[in-house]
Amino acid sequence: MSPEEFRRQGHAAIDWIADYWASLDELPVRSQLAPGDVRRLLPASAPEDAEPFDAVLDDLDRVVVPGLTHWQHPRFFAYFPANSSPAAILGDLLSSGIGAQGMIWATSPAVTEVEQVVLDWFAEALRLPEAFRSDGPGGGVIQDTASTATFTALLSALHRASGGEARVSGVGGTQWRVYGSTQAHSSLVKAAMMAGLGEDAVRTIDVDPATQAMDVDALRDAMAEDVEAGLRPVMVQAACGSTSTGAMDDVAAIAEVAREWGAWLHVDAAWAGVAAVCPEHRDHLAGVEAADSFVTNPHKWLLTTFDCSTFWVRDRKALTGALSILPEYLRNAATESGEVVDYRDWHPQLGRRFRAIKLWAVLRTYGVSGLREHVRHGIALAGHVADLVAGDDRFEMVTEPALSLVVFRLRAGDEQTLAAMEAVNASGEAYLSHTTVNGVAAIRLAVGSWRTTLADVDRTWRALQEAAVSHG
Amino acid sequence: MSPEEFRRQGHAAIDWIADYWASLDELPVRSQLAPGDVRRLLPASAPEDAEPFDAVLDDLDRVVVPGLTHWQHPRFFAYFPANSSPAAILGDLLSSGIGAQGMIWATSPAVTEVEQVVLDWFAEALRLPEAFRSDGPGGGVIQDTASTATFTALLSALHRASGGEARVSGVGGTQWRVYGSTQAHSSLVKAAMMAGLGEDAVRTIDVDPATQAMDVDALRDAMAEDVEAGLRPVMVQAACGSTSTGAMDDVAAIAEVAREWGAWLHVDAAWAGVAAVCPEHRDHLAGVEAADSFVTNPHKWLLTTFDCSTFWVRDRKALTGALSILPEYLRNAATESGEVVDYRDWHPQLGRRFRAIKLWAVLRTYGVSGLREHVRHGIALAGHVADLVAGDDRFEMVTEPALSLVVFRLRAGDEQTLAAMEAVNASGEAYLSHTTVNGVAAIRLAVGSWRTTLADVDRTWRALQEAAVSHG
Repeated sequence: MSPEEFRRQGHAAIDWIADYWASLDELPVRSQLAPGDVRRLLPASAPEDAEPFDAVLDDLDRVVVPGLTHWQHPRFFAYFPANSSPAAILGDLLSSGIGAQGMIWATSPAVTEVEQVVLDWFAEALRLPEAFRSDGPGGGVIQDTASTATFTALLSALHRASGGEARVSGVGGTQWRVYGSTQAHSSLVKAAMMAGLGEDAVRTIDVDPATQAMDVDALRDAMAEDVEAGLRPVMVQAACGSTSTGAMDDVAAIAEVAREWGAWLHVDAAWAGVAAVCPEHRDHLAGVEAADSFVTNPHKWLLTTFDCSTFWVRDRKALTGALSILPEYLRNAATESGEVVDYRDWHPQLGRRFRAIKLWAVLRTYGVSGLREHVRHGIALAGHVADLVAGDDRFEMVTEPALSLVVFRLRAGDEQTLAAMEAVNASGEAYLSHTTVNGVAAIRLAVGSWRTTLADVDRTWRALQEAAVSHG
Repeated sequence: MSPEEFRRQGHAAIDWIADYWASLDELPVRSQLAPGDVRRLLPASAPEDAEPFDAVLDDLDRVVVPGLTHWQHPRFFAYFPANSSPAAILGDLLSSGIGAQGMIWATSPAVTEVEQVVLDWFAEALRLPEAFRSDGPGGGVIQDTASTATFTALLSALHRASGGEARVSGVGGTQWRVYGSTQAHSSLVKAAMMAGLGEDAVRTIDVDPATQAMDVDALRDAMAEDVEAGLRPVMVQAACGSTSTGAMDDVAAIAEVAREWGAWLHVDAAWAGVAAVCPEHRDHLAGVEAADSFVTNPHKWLLTTFDCSTFWVRDRKALTGALSILPEYLRNAATESGEVVDYRDWHPQLGRRFRAIKLWAVLRTYGVSGLREHVRHGIALAGHVADLVAGDDRFEMVTEPALSLVVFRLRAGDEQTLAAMEAVNASGEAYLSHTTVNGVAAIRLAVGSWRTTLADVDRTWRALQEAAVSHG
């Protein structure tokens, strides 16, 4: 592809995206296809000879778009929305064009230094502890996902608790214990499995039925009981904004218990943490000052194209101690001087792209004030949904609204609740997901997109009401 | 950003990339900056108010470009080049624009099905075993990096060897052993550390000094000795194209030894595997039919923007058995039907972007014939470098050329070799990296970029000759 051809096709790709966004409102949110429908439209083998790029664009419309559930659709309310934005898309495009590897400082210094600065900026915007800043013993890094952040937090915790022994001779000598509430994200158990502890090493702590937040007294009892039995607490995870209902654990109270046993405190605020850009929504992070590590995902609610999970540690030595390896071909003067950070030692992967550009672009083109406005918009729309639920006797709230997440159900029962949701999803009008709270089925409606309007919420609510007539 | 503004800024970003590429030839390959130089140019805090996107583009020129080591530069020969290409960049751009999550089939079916088809295409183009195809018990997936592929291979191996016990109660009950040559990539040791086995669990096997390939007799002896001592072999890694010298382990012979003890055979062909698109460069994969898993990175030599590491397994049940978790909010009819693949269970992360688009775009816009041409171009240029080395008495080859990698040194000694390389790197004329082979220092020159010409290689060689005068 010549430079002229790249410009032409590049402009066409940009225009394709603009047109795709413009078309979203008319498309069913959830793909209407059945398993195998996309595969069937594709040839069995790669072409022997080159095809023009236009053929790829044509196939996006013909093959891909019908097979998409449109995560950028204004009526996508399922899971937690993962929002892209123009600035982030272009930031990531520039990263692809630069094509630099930031595995160590020396392989492309700007990749590391821009990331350090942007993570400091973002830590300040969220009012995270000073200890997380890159100019002290801690620091931040962009991980691909919160799952990886939780996993690396656990590896750091094992490194610290074992005095460096775990990386040398493994985790087998000690019966380690990891704690999270019954509402902790599934990645906590996955982390324990991957780290060689096994799922049995995770002790799940009950929650308060009303708030779904961890019962801290139960945590205290569990840890004491485990220590008594010869087990060794290594990490406690506090969830700020659980996936199911957006429940907020009491970080300060959990920190106190974790400290008693010297356990690492990891705060998983993957979805809700970004709301702390608003001073009035910073409360749920109270106590984060005592955390050993913290993660929140700009790639969920904060307009930054996946993947961008921002992760901070209080003491980067525990993290790099768990993960560093220096083969001969990566030795260099800058690393040996100790003046630089080599991000390769901060995550499982060696290679890393210049992910900071997209977050830098988002922080700058929205400004912190613009991000506050975005967060407040989502919370206001969720409040409106809560009002709608309160105004219709057939529905009831299951938990209090948590930021931009509303969890509700049909009073008629579980089957009716799930059937009504499925009817809306199948119609393509909107897309919602479900959960189970205290044993009953519930519908989750999470607002995230900057394109979602009051009209989108009202239209979704009308669809639910109609479904309630048929299924309620 | 309005749709019109997105089009305008998107076109500007595309043009910035085209201009950046056009400027590369005039830029020093290695950044000339010192630690902290980039940071100093950035403000201390994120802006309160929105800035125009143009300001980000301006800062790329002012702040970022001087701090880059230019991986897309035609005279970047260090490490293994990680090449971007127009088609891949635009493919990844489209993925950002679509912004869909493919964690499970149901969250956006096309993300999963296009990836399955493209991995089948690519397996066929490399003539990988039928068993790796998605329509049998195996299948392929795009991982972020080969490090992650190796890690997940190890988790799969542990799952199989423990009969599923490892994921439940951890790896502690057995003294597991992992094998690779002294030339295996550092990610093998990192995988053992992360999986809870510790670095001591990796037994490194000596290599043949001439070829740097694993001494398979030494492997056989080591495994027998370990079993005798009560240790349990769980995985053997064969390297096809080591990082240091491009050494090729004998996969078929290793497979036979691994099979004796029921160990998982993982083939790491991260860099060299893609060369198998050329029938005449398929030899080094002989024996891959017996592998349990295989990885090669289109994001290195095959023009696909990072990250794109293609990974296949013979039996996907071992992989998903090690990694699957199904929380309530992800339950869905398609998963329960067993008709679909949920890629979330194929890697550590839960979230995943539509990475297949970029590989799809590369395979289509180059065609398999175009990819062969690209690989042959790199190998021919490396052959030219070998001729230049042979033609200058001050230099000598350290190992035979391996595909597009040439490893050589100054006869004068280690210090002189490293000083000459550093002189070239510091000048910005070209960028090379070093290694140690059989205890002596050597320069690695790896050709990868589609923009590298014979003139670039000659110019680099002249710079090395001049440096040899000063340092030899």
